[in-house]
Amino acid sequence: MKISLGCELGYRVGGRAVLILNVQPAATPRQRVLSETLAVTPETVRTESWTAADTGNRYLRLHVGEPAELLVRHEATVELTPHLADPAEVTELPPAELPPEALPHLWPSRFCESDRLSRLAHREFGDVPPGHGRVTTICNWVNDRITYLPGASTPTTTATETLLAGAGVCRDFAHLSVALCRALGIPARFVSAHAPGLVPPDFHAVFEAFLGGRWWLFDATRQAPLDALVRIGLGRDAAEAAFAEIHGEATPSRMTVRAEVIEGLDVARDIRTTRAVAGAAEAP
Amino acid sequence: MKISLGCELGYRVGGRAVLILNVQPAATPRQRVLSETLAVTPETVRTESWTAADTGNRYLRLHVGEPAELLVRHEATVELTPHLADPAEVTELPPAELPPEALPHLWPSRFCESDRLSRLAHREFGDVPPGHGRVTTICNWVNDRITYLPGASTPTTTATETLLAGAGVCRDFAHLSVALCRALGIPARFVSAHAPGLVPPDFHAVFEAFLGGRWWLFDATRQAPLDALVRIGLGRDAAEAAFAEIHGEATPSRMTVRAEVIEGLDVARDIRTTRAVAGAAEAP
Amino acid sequence: MKISLGCELGYRVGGRAVLILNVQPAATPRQRVLSETLAVTPETVRTESWTAADTGNRYLRLHVGEPAELLVRHEATVELTPHLADPAEVTELPPAELPPEALPHLWPSRFCESDRLSRLAHREFGDVPPGHGRVTTICNWVNDRITYLPGASTPTTTATETLLAGAGVCRDFAHLSVALCRALGIPARFVSAHAPGLVPPDFHAVFEAFLGGRWWLFDATRQAPLDALVRIGLGRDAAEAAFAEIHGEATPSRMTVRAEVIEGLDVARDIRTTRAVAGAAEAP
Amino acid sequence: MKISLGCELGYRVGGRAVLILNVQPAATPRQRVLSETLAVTPETVRTESWTAADTGNRYLRLHVGEPAELLVRHEATVELTPHLADPAEVTELPPAELPPEALPHLWPSRFCESDRLSRLAHREFGDVPPGHGRVTTICNWVNDRITYLPGASTPTTTATETLLAGAGVCRDFAHLSVALCRALGIPARFVSAHAPGLVPPDFHAVFEAFLGGRWWLFDATRQAPLDALVRIGLGRDAAEAAFAEIHGEATPSRMTVRAEVIEGLDVARDIRTTRAVAGAAEAP
Repeated sequence: MKISLGCELGYRVGGRAVLILNVQPAATPRQRVLSETLAVTPETVRTESWTAADTGNRYLRLHVGEPAELLVRHEATVELTPHLADPAEVTELPPAELPPEALPHLWPSRFCESDRLSRLAHREFGDVPPGHGRVTTICNWVNDRITYLPGASTPTTTATETLLAGAGVCRDFAHLSVALCRALGIPARFVSAHAPGLVPPDFHAVFEAFLGGRWWLFDATRQAPLDALVRIGLGRDAAEAAFAEIHGEATPSRMTVRAEVIEGLDVARDIRTTRAVAGAAEAP
Repeated sequence: MKISLGCELGYRVGGRAVLILNVQPAATPRQRVLSETLAVTPETVRTESWTAADTGNRYLRLHVGEPAELLVRHEATVELTPHLADPAEVTELPPAELPPEALPHLWPSRFCESDRLSRLAHREFGDVPPGHGRVTTICNWVNDRITYLPGASTPTTTATETLLAGAGVCRDFAHLSVALCRALGIPARFVSAHAPGLVPPDFHAVFEAFLGGRWWLFDATRQAPLDALVRIGLGRDAAEAAFAEIHGEATPSRMTVRAEVIEGLDVARDIRTTRAVAGAAEAP
Repeated sequence: MKISLGCELGYRVGGRAVLILNVQPAATPRQRVLSETLAVTPETVRTESWTAADTGNRYLRLHVGEPAELLVRHEATVELTPHLADPAEVTELPPAELPPEALPHLWPSRFCESDRLSRLAHREFGDVPPGHGRVTTICNWVNDRITYLPGASTPTTTATETLLAGAGVCRDFAHLSVALCRALGIPARFVSAHAPGLVPPDFHAVFEAFLGGRWWLFDATRQAPLDALVRIGLGRDAAEAAFAEIHGEATPSRMTVRAEVIEGLDVARDIRTTRAVAGAAEAP
Repeated sequence: MKISLGCELGYRVGGRAVLILNVQPAATPRQRVLSETLAVTPETVRTESWTAADTGNRYLRLHVGEPAELLVRHEATVELTPHLADPAEVTELPPAELPPEALPHLWPSRFCESDRLSRLAHREFGDVPPGHGRVTTICNWVNDRITYLPGASTPTTTATETLLAGAGVCRDFAHLSVALCRALGIPARFVSAHAPGLVPPDFHAVFEAFLGGRWWLFDATRQAPLDALVRIGLGRDAAEAAFAEIHGEATPSRMTVRAEVIEGLDVARDIRTTRAVAGAAEAP
């Protein structure tokens, strides 16, 4: 499947400022970046870029030295070849068998306080048969209890706060799901993404659970087809996968995001929710 | 029904200290104190007592002037004539019809943060038919989700913390139930009590909801027959109905509590959970 | 001193709604309401009013039966004769000497979690000489640490959250001050008020501490002269002294508030911050 | 300097259990493990070990298949050659100059909610001259406000909770310090360690701040000489550097820890607090 995507981010910069952006899609064997352009104005802005070794997140650091209307335009075409499987055959691994690199994703993190939800998670999901279906059960449970409501949460809202509030946005759905997975002993992590079909168009947040030796994608908001998601950032939670970090006098002034399936659209629709999907993290 | 009850509270006092106790049963038309003795040693301890106008709580202030082994012994016989009714006939009043004195019991309080649970309460209980049965549904919901576990909570644990933790003691069951009632527009308040039959014997905490013009008793722990409860303190939550407040150098050294039905035991057993019970608050 | 004050509150009501307002000044020997008008439109709105026995708060319940633009206009002239004293002569009472009616104001409440601030309060203020000056020290401490910033808090923000956030509005300044007083054993409570001179004009929130047998006014925001404050509501915290509670489909559409000293202005200015002020709560 | 250290950890295992331990010292150019023995009984326990690529943490996974008294004994001799410098010459780097690998340590984490402390941190430390001395100022501020009190915190206690509670243990001192550093734009991370001289002997928790291109050690508890600390685990906070994670039916039954300087003791005493110390993380 091919996705055409892009974003335009504007910032009003009042003096010196440093911005660290993570908006470019990760480049992996299952997520090939076919073409890409990045334009930053004004031209006096110095840029640096790097890819984080542990996550594959691609960072762009912008150094603005004087008052300016900063504009970042990114466009790319990406080819996805997700790994698909029958959910019934995707099993959970006990702590004894989890590979070392998956274990840190059992730990609680800033916005996913799994250590406070152990009893609740076991009460609600302890009797659900382990496997891909149990994580889907968690997604359904979250979807039943949390109203999608822009403005209901803030940048410091955590999973437990979302559970109490009963409302949130994609980021909050992902945090609560991740926290519940970890509380059950299922490694889970946060993914920021481009999601074709999102209404209104925006960046999206979903999550991955580690099952049967792979990371599988889940979206408790049910707003986007999993096999068409383009991974941007990966982290323990949103604290580690922000689109933009601002240091200094800069404030967002505009943002537009777009993503369209330009090849393979029918596939995306057909398999929605019926297959287990492992995305960009996987080797082919 | 007649109840014989008592408690013995010991404190190790290191110097000057003031203790404010609320362990004596309230005296109301439906809860008559037939006989009562109170003994405080050493005799040098000065005592004051008063009854709070708004709650009927009976307070005892003890002034200890020097290091001592303080011992307070209280014994009483109480006659209860609770008002009983068919739960199906006990209705809710809308905010438009609640009497002024019930309205403050809709407000959130220290340990019952109903203002944070509005969406959750309406999602879980919004479709349950209003009335006594809806509060029973809340009790059942709390009982299903909270494990009775001494040590699981602390003196600062709140209703939302209990909901997340999934465990607590009688005080926590009452707080969470009260918070959910208030979030639905049902006035609710906290009651500390002697409860015959409690294993092990201890003070108990239950709550009251205001329905159809009266305050009705509920116990989400299901540990004691409602018609045999002897009210001690009344308050918005445990912050306002503590058995003992200590100012100065005193630490608890012993506590025994007892309560037995000495007349009318069969009644207590028979009506358990089948009738709505309005206790000490009510005029006959 | 005479104060002319008023407010105009508008609500867009979509269907049936009940509003409970507490915007009228309390009537006490030290705060005489010389004249007052209250107008509610449309005329089909049914109104009830009462005064709470424990606080003197004056409530107005409005029953709206159909979609409407509800408008409430209140105007009054109030005469204040506050009790003034030399702060140096206003002392603290130990728990042993506090009158029973002051003791409940030592308890933690929804927005003033004094039970979580005991150690911090004693570390910061334990060595400050007791009395009116210690509460002023608390006000100064709060004023140094909290930035007055509209929008920094929400209706559920508590004293500990304000302390961490370092910003808030008048209500938050009052909550944090109240919590610190209680943590030190000084009874304290929340007061909503009309405050002449507030820029921009608005309702105000201050607090009272119980010292030497009286309730004394304090304002950690330093925005208004204490002797010109007109008390509206009294409560443990803002949960108990809200200007408006809405049940049903009503949303605020407009609000204007005004208060001017029309007689005795010079007095107000001269004594600002130099005298201890006991306001509406006191008998002359 | 040479340190002899060891620990003995016992667990009562009721059935199947998996334990993941991180008690062995990291092996780095500045922290050489001269000799080491590890003994696990009973012998039927299967063990696996690995070193995490990103932190250098050494993990031991123990598979217990049946009820047992599990005992783990570790002994080692370690040679430390910390990098020392004049604190006055250790500067802070602005966000523009921080290397990519340091940036994640600006993010908030489970127990270090730096995102909630920005305003407070800037108010308290914004005017302190940047550099090693500013982090020492943070340590002193924490030491002034937090009482070292075993039992005052729990495994889920966070930095903001510690700040409010005013008490905690080494882990809490480290969390609060880390959170304040990050809030100021100073990368900081959590370190678990063997600390010679600790009374009573125990594992210790300290932290590192990234200054002038290196990670420097700090201990807000002031309980151990920094140049004699032996690093065990490294992480964003204690969630990522636990000594033991237990999955299944195992409960701790005993723990002894020891660490002694066996060569170079005088050095340790002399330089205490007067030099900046970069420990195991550094290449020589």
